[in-house]
Amino acid sequence: MDYAKKFIVKPGDRVRLADIDPGDTADQRSHSKAKPLTKDYLKRLAALQYRLYADGNRSLLVVLQGLDAGGKDGVIRHVFSRMNPQGTSVACFKQPSREELSHDFLWRIHKRTPAKGEVVVFNRSHYEGVLVERVHDLVPQDMWSSRFELITRFEELLAQSGTKILKFYLHISPEEQLERFRRRLEDETRHWKISESDYEERKFWPQYMEAYEDVLAKTSTADSPWFVIPSNNKWFRNLAVAQIITRTMDDMKLQLPPTHVDLRDIQRRYHAAKQRADADGKDT
Amino acid sequence: MDYAKKFIVKPGDRVRLADIDPGDTADQRSHSKAKPLTKDYLKRLAALQYRLYADGNRSLLVVLQGLDAGGKDGVIRHVFSRMNPQGTSVACFKQPSREELSHDFLWRIHKRTPAKGEVVVFNRSHYEGVLVERVHDLVPQDMWSSRFELITRFEELLAQSGTKILKFYLHISPEEQLERFRRRLEDETRHWKISESDYEERKFWPQYMEAYEDVLAKTSTADSPWFVIPSNNKWFRNLAVAQIITRTMDDMKLQLPPTHVDLRDIQRRYHAAKQRADADGKDT
Repeated sequence: MDYAKKFIVKPGDRVRLADIDPGDTADQRSHSKAKPLTKDYLKRLAALQYRLYADGNRSLLVVLQGLDAGGKDGVIRHVFSRMNPQGTSVACFKQPSREELSHDFLWRIHKRTPAKGEVVVFNRSHYEGVLVERVHDLVPQDMWSSRFELITRFEELLAQSGTKILKFYLHISPEEQLERFRRRLEDETRHWKISESDYEERKFWPQYMEAYEDVLAKTSTADSPWFVIPSNNKWFRNLAVAQIITRTMDDMKLQLPPTHVDLRDIQRRYHAAKQRADADGKDT
Repeated sequence: MDYAKKFIVKPGDRVRLADIDPGDTADQRSHSKAKPLTKDYLKRLAALQYRLYADGNRSLLVVLQGLDAGGKDGVIRHVFSRMNPQGTSVACFKQPSREELSHDFLWRIHKRTPAKGEVVVFNRSHYEGVLVERVHDLVPQDMWSSRFELITRFEELLAQSGTKILKFYLHISPEEQLERFRRRLEDETRHWKISESDYEERKFWPQYMEAYEDVLAKTSTADSPWFVIPSNNKWFRNLAVAQIITRTMDDMKLQLPPTHVDLRDIQRRYHAAKQRADADGKDT
């Protein structure tokens, strides 16, 4: 099944998140059957990344958004850990610093966009400016509401210089979030990660859903689409994200660059060097 | 065998690279026997990196240097590919840009040093300032010769703010380099990487050895040691680098941070949220 087709938010469409089942696994029935598929995509992804790096004209930006425990870190660990770290990086956008706050909201984002040949993953992103900042009234409505247009223009700028953008909203249910909080409580190695705000933020669930629905309706474009990934099942989430990225990179028709040297000349140089080395070997 | 002990350049020592066999495999006899050892180190490395990230007070900087085809890219692919890309990054120092050249030689380096909790790998580094720039007379002798001291002070600054530095010189023979060039010529997917300068640089082999010997003698310190890794055998190189990094991180005694919340309070919050969720479930 083509998960991109299934989970894309078509430009202009308004989705109701309540109508999308976070436990959906589409055509997949079990983790054990999905596992080899995911593994195969990850292998192809590594090869495609090599081509992207070699090609050096295009780049890929993957935006991950979702509520706490939605699985952003998990996608990074599972889908991107097999890529060559040379050419792949992760930008994690936490609370902005004082310097960052003294600039427009895209300033710190722009600095981390991928160079040609690179894959960059955003763990949270410029969308926080129309999500957490909206939900908690950190900026006035006329400011955040004008940001949708600013974001779209910014992403057009990136797309026009060769950056393919894929944006994933990792969709979980409030029950699943609570279950994941419970597991954190039971795992001592993760206690340091627990924060009171996890529970405070939960209370804003409906406001977040409304904010996300606006984001999806206003900023999913042909060059920079949103996908709503049912993410209650981590194994399905990983499979869907891996497939969508793989197929997108396949479609980029990345080519290895042409040889920029005269190969016959290089052959001659090789043989000359080889003869010298052999002669040196005989001398000793 | 403790490869750190075996391959370290003791502070103040002057090694003669001609006396070190690039084909050495120490106590290892075969790739097949070394493979599971390397795999085990990589697994431990991933766990240690999680602790470094969680701890958030220390960082690790790995410097890779070596001649063309020495294996810098290979080490990155094999030793660092299993780490979580969130918290690991690679900085590749190619020819400096015009802006970079208009600053001191450490300016572009400093920008890429690891933040607390991070692992950063330098593919080439500030040492190019006393290697390629020296060998090709790009800077006058009084300038490059003063850089050893500047480099040592710079690395002290990093060490004092919690960065552990490990520097690897990947030692191959000229014959092995030539053999790797030959393999590139035979592999079409790598033709785009071939450059005439590969063969030009080879002619400076003795000058590079002299420059490296100076680097090793003048900049290996207790906090920031150099290791000369015999690298004709890629599998042994990977094993030795993986072991040295793993043991170093082990010695850092990284701890998971203490829980910064009252766990009983969190338990109460969890149960309150759970009750609300269950009640909501009954309503519908």
